[in-house]
Amino acid sequence: MNTHIKINAAHSDKSDADAAFQARYRDGSQPKGTWNDVLALQLAHRSVRAYLPDALPEGTLETIVAAAQSAASSSNLQLWSVVAVEDAATRARFAELANGQKHIAQAPLLLVWLADLSRAERQAAAQSLPTEAIDFLDIFVVTTTDAAIAAQNAALAAESLGLGTVYIGALRNRITEVAALLKLPPHVYPVFGLVVGHPDPALPAGIKPRLPQSVVLHRETYTAAGEAAGVAAYDERAKAFQKEQGQPIINWSRQLVDRIGTPAGLNGRERLRQALEGFGFKLK
Amino acid sequence: MNTHIKINAAHSDKSDADAAFQARYRDGSQPKGTWNDVLALQLAHRSVRAYLPDALPEGTLETIVAAAQSAASSSNLQLWSVVAVEDAATRARFAELANGQKHIAQAPLLLVWLADLSRAERQAAAQSLPTEAIDFLDIFVVTTTDAAIAAQNAALAAESLGLGTVYIGALRNRITEVAALLKLPPHVYPVFGLVVGHPDPALPAGIKPRLPQSVVLHRETYTAAGEAAGVAAYDERAKAFQKEQGQPIINWSRQLVDRIGTPAGLNGRERLRQALEGFGFKLK
Repeated sequence: MNTHIKINAAHSDKSDADAAFQARYRDGSQPKGTWNDVLALQLAHRSVRAYLPDALPEGTLETIVAAAQSAASSSNLQLWSVVAVEDAATRARFAELANGQKHIAQAPLLLVWLADLSRAERQAAAQSLPTEAIDFLDIFVVTTTDAAIAAQNAALAAESLGLGTVYIGALRNRITEVAALLKLPPHVYPVFGLVVGHPDPALPAGIKPRLPQSVVLHRETYTAAGEAAGVAAYDERAKAFQKEQGQPIINWSRQLVDRIGTPAGLNGRERLRQALEGFGFKLK
Repeated sequence: MNTHIKINAAHSDKSDADAAFQARYRDGSQPKGTWNDVLALQLAHRSVRAYLPDALPEGTLETIVAAAQSAASSSNLQLWSVVAVEDAATRARFAELANGQKHIAQAPLLLVWLADLSRAERQAAAQSLPTEAIDFLDIFVVTTTDAAIAAQNAALAAESLGLGTVYIGALRNRITEVAALLKLPPHVYPVFGLVVGHPDPALPAGIKPRLPQSVVLHRETYTAAGEAAGVAAYDERAKAFQKEQGQPIINWSRQLVDRIGTPAGLNGRERLRQALEGFGFKLK
């Protein structure tokens, strides 16, 4: 397994690993065991929302897509596709549709990740075979997670090449218009976008702290014991980060609750089900 | 961006990159541009279904979870959790529930990735605020993709440490029993499992070829032009792989269609919607 791949251990010294954990958690937790450049790259992730307009180096798109396709796929069904949007006018339009996120227009590439059952449907039609299971919720979960897993490999591949990325969930705000612009056939929906480009060095993004591991990692069975204290401590760390970044100061736990409070917070996505039914998803 | 991370370019020579693309596509396509160890690791992915019983090195779980938490999260809501199952009897039980997949019992660790809205719900209760949006399909997509994106970072982190992994979608076959064993609260569901362990060197897994890029990568808009020919060519490559692996020989395009043909092929997952409703998901 991986015998031909030697992950660089040059940065495997304890101080680098400690610094990476501290940036991510800010809670004094320290890694034990092996450290390497892949882990360092993963822990250094930040979402980039300011880009230079520079074109990507030749071959970048194909390399990123190869990484995406190399991720696991449920039963190897490969129920996803991706649209590479480079056209400036289209990116500007998507920026508008996604609540004015200007980085979509700034960066040279927007990848739109598609949950795609239409390829399977075309194959069934060619073989005169039924597609009854396509209507079930489980296949919706399969196609959605297939797309997400592929996208994350693409995101990390881009970062390994020194590029920045940011996911665009807001592509679902006005999903019907997005689907029309991309000329999607039935039984396909855009799960999210991923912007790829050269980060603007004048506006560097910070590493956002995450919840303590004790809150998200459960042993053997689920427990919420310790969660309240863990979230309260995290609220303080999140506020320290907001202050550093010059952002409005608000408890993370309040942001979380506001987001799930009322359908108004969904910015159009409260109609996702209706839109997906329009695309032919029955979600039985 | 990433200024402190130097990805090893020792393997960036053209022949290594060509070999990685050839193993993944078998279609003569060649990478252009920069190559590095992260890409090499991603392209070398294979799902491992034979493990040694050896324990993982100390700190492996925490390192993997840190990688998972470092992945992007929609609006930083972090709507996922993970249960680490190490208990041998529980793993054996999960192997049974997942259609007899013995590698779940063999490897020392099963990570169960959870779409988790219960944490947000507890926070809302603590703040006496509403949770109306929790019932909408979009939040279901957010929590599911958050979990999947995190899991893929974890999978690659494990592989960077020389370990093997395999996703277990079949945890959804008997999802109600899985949820009960893990003592999941309402508004949480297990999206899939991820087995992590030392690959058995006596039973090495092969690199599975994927569809040609021309089939999954669209430019500017979606098109199925060229798909039929691309899939037909892929059927032959998939059969060559099956032959090498001593597997039954069957067209991939037929496997694909069989999987979406009838609800019987879903192995219990045709009841996923009903089960999720039982967990409190309304999917409006």
